[in-house]
Amino acid sequence: MPRPRPLSGFPEFLPSDRIVEQFVLDRLRSTFELHGFASVETRAVEPLDRLSKQGEIDKEVYAVRRLHAAEDSRDELGLHFDLTVPFARYVLENAGHLQFPFRRYQIQKVWRGERPQEGRYREFTQADVDIVDVDALAGHHDVELPLVVLDAFGALQTDLRLPPVLMRVSNRRLAQGFYAGLGIEDPAPVLRIVDKIDKIGPDRVADALREDAGLDAAQARACVALAGIRTADASFVEQVRALGIGSELLDDGLEQLAAVVEAGGRYAPGRMVADLSIARGLDYYTGTVYETNLVGFAELGSVSSGGRYDALATDGRTSYPGVGLSIGVTRMLVPLLGRGVVTASRPTPTCVLVAVDAEETRGAAVDVAQRLRRRGIAAEVAPKADKFGKQIRYADRRSIPFVWFGAAGANGEVKDIRTGEQLPADPDRWEPPDSDLRPAVQTRWEG
Amino acid sequence: MPRPRPLSGFPEFLPSDRIVEQFVLDRLRSTFELHGFASVETRAVEPLDRLSKQGEIDKEVYAVRRLHAAEDSRDELGLHFDLTVPFARYVLENAGHLQFPFRRYQIQKVWRGERPQEGRYREFTQADVDIVDVDALAGHHDVELPLVVLDAFGALQTDLRLPPVLMRVSNRRLAQGFYAGLGIEDPAPVLRIVDKIDKIGPDRVADALREDAGLDAAQARACVALAGIRTADASFVEQVRALGIGSELLDDGLEQLAAVVEAGGRYAPGRMVADLSIARGLDYYTGTVYETNLVGFAELGSVSSGGRYDALATDGRTSYPGVGLSIGVTRMLVPLLGRGVVTASRPTPTCVLVAVDAEETRGAAVDVAQRLRRRGIAAEVAPKADKFGKQIRYADRRSIPFVWFGAAGANGEVKDIRTGEQLPADPDRWEPPDSDLRPAVQTRWEG
Repeated sequence: MPRPRPLSGFPEFLPSDRIVEQFVLDRLRSTFELHGFASVETRAVEPLDRLSKQGEIDKEVYAVRRLHAAEDSRDELGLHFDLTVPFARYVLENAGHLQFPFRRYQIQKVWRGERPQEGRYREFTQADVDIVDVDALAGHHDVELPLVVLDAFGALQTDLRLPPVLMRVSNRRLAQGFYAGLGIEDPAPVLRIVDKIDKIGPDRVADALREDAGLDAAQARACVALAGIRTADASFVEQVRALGIGSELLDDGLEQLAAVVEAGGRYAPGRMVADLSIARGLDYYTGTVYETNLVGFAELGSVSSGGRYDALATDGRTSYPGVGLSIGVTRMLVPLLGRGVVTASRPTPTCVLVAVDAEETRGAAVDVAQRLRRRGIAAEVAPKADKFGKQIRYADRRSIPFVWFGAAGANGEVKDIRTGEQLPADPDRWEPPDSDLRPAVQTRWEG
Repeated sequence: MPRPRPLSGFPEFLPSDRIVEQFVLDRLRSTFELHGFASVETRAVEPLDRLSKQGEIDKEVYAVRRLHAAEDSRDELGLHFDLTVPFARYVLENAGHLQFPFRRYQIQKVWRGERPQEGRYREFTQADVDIVDVDALAGHHDVELPLVVLDAFGALQTDLRLPPVLMRVSNRRLAQGFYAGLGIEDPAPVLRIVDKIDKIGPDRVADALREDAGLDAAQARACVALAGIRTADASFVEQVRALGIGSELLDDGLEQLAAVVEAGGRYAPGRMVADLSIARGLDYYTGTVYETNLVGFAELGSVSSGGRYDALATDGRTSYPGVGLSIGVTRMLVPLLGRGVVTASRPTPTCVLVAVDAEETRGAAVDVAQRLRRRGIAAEVAPKADKFGKQIRYADRRSIPFVWFGAAGANGEVKDIRTGEQLPADPDRWEPPDSDLRPAVQTRWEG
């Protein structure tokens, strides 16, 4: 079998990069749990009709079928393309066993059959937090959720020295209320066009609104003016009012968005702005919408997006409105790892390599390693009773900081192979410095 | 949309059961890391030709294709059905970037299109540990790997009060050498039949060996006699010798297996036996093979299996022999959770619910929660400024042990809702008992 080549769009990490990923996932998990979110994992597959009815239509779905299924049997299952649609299904299915409002986080792979390119993958990891309730979900959860995510990014900024993020927030009701006040009947194509304003600019958006959405010049101008409003506090409300459009829905949206942005200013100062250009393509959002960028890495796109969805989960009688955000872990990490911005100090958890004097005394080295492990120190035994220089090189190539000698005798010694310092040590007592116990994650900025 | 129903064979956990699963996965991960194994995750899909060439032929593979792919395009990808085949591919693909011998663990879902039944799932989680080297892999790794897995089960036994395990070990070379000494040319059908001895018994195995594998009565008798040998120490060697068959391959196998069982007796006394009925169906094993049962839960089948594979990963010029074991996490947990043997003390990480006096002072409750979180105490804010009795019931329904009152005033108090005790507390100082900080996992044995 020839050497296999990577599959485009399916990134896999080498062990040292995987250590960085684990570090990030561990921080996300602990933040979510500190905020009282319970972990849920859903199966990878959903019925195809559920995947195609809900969510973005332009996301290409992977269909799944048993290889030995009959030739003419229809595809019935597909891989999930996000974690929101499966979560909505999970809530419907298990509603009788859950306590509402239900707070869950979910960290899993998702799959999309898109054309692979930088920042677009066919398999990638998302980390989602959502709150759902029965019939109605209090508005303060729209305020709470972005703070959870900003707290998670804050932990990454502190522990990993990742750059800070800026979350941009808007509100579908605000936009739709504004469009309704302008006399626009179908807001969907307008939202879709306005969503491109970052990419194509206000002039081409105005053109498209006239040509593709059938707006007149004044309507198009007003939509572009709305999308141009961006404030770090609630002053966007006045700016919207100054455009002279009014509707009940617009008032609702303004009030909801003001509450989110005011809390952002209080609990995550400098990390959140109201940005009325944010539309979010997904059909299922009905209120607040969020997008998040790493400051200085705009080219990575949004690293965390989401919003309120009032009608995603319903069994016809009861509906389960929710609000949530998704962090694009792979999307954020692959470029940072690829550019060497974030690295692990070693590609293995091993802190101590226990040297073997001779194959006959391997058992003594295994004993020492086991005594270290019992106290939480990761250890492995040298694979071969080579000359000590060669065993040290084994450790050095993996950046394992310590080598243990004399396992078979009464006088054990441990060598820090970085400094060359070698000291007598007892496998039941010796402790490495805290900073060496586990692989560290380092961040290096250029410029 | 009507209420969805579970997909047979795709188990999903409610939050409290997921907490048990996380507890188990965390213990496995920390044990593997203490033994110096690095984490690897591979993509969910492999080229179909790789999946069908390697591994068990009778495992049904799920094919994956873009839903919008051309009607007549061939399926080219499939979901992996184990973690060994993808790992072998990963090693080949990344050999230039890995340090050998390479120690990795891998905890991921796998998929098999089998008919669902108790203990058989279509999606399930496996936790694998393997060591691979270039060209040749030292025999002491066959000794080391089962001890890592027994250490992991030991941690589950200690921390979760799971029952102890018994690992049964055999060796393909031993069996094949024995068959060769008997004059049997093709050992594969013999291994396949002997593998069923637990299910169909020695008499029917002897019949099948004669009828389906073309053995004569003496050969069949000898094969059944070999499969009947089971010892807790290396005394199986003498018992095999007493059958009067000799070959070089047999001697090799006997020596390898004796080394494994002797180490088992030393480092995991009572947890390992040589059992020459173990054959393992997978084609790729070439030496030591392992199977593991939870004592008292034989009906769950093997909860950890594996073996040595010398020829799985090769690019034609270089081969990467390996040895590894896989723990069937889902297979072990689903029945234990279903029977209520293992439970979590609460279905949420939340330790403290901060009560809200009035919606206008929600911010003060958020402040208290944030101060608790900063010191590692999971907290959530009550979703509604209900009467305190109702807020306490919110906590009680989730088994959240503590409710915080008076967030908006100067005199905060915390109530243990199990005892009713309520004491003044400072959100920057108060600590819950260690046992309440996180959800605990409890094990209850019947009879």
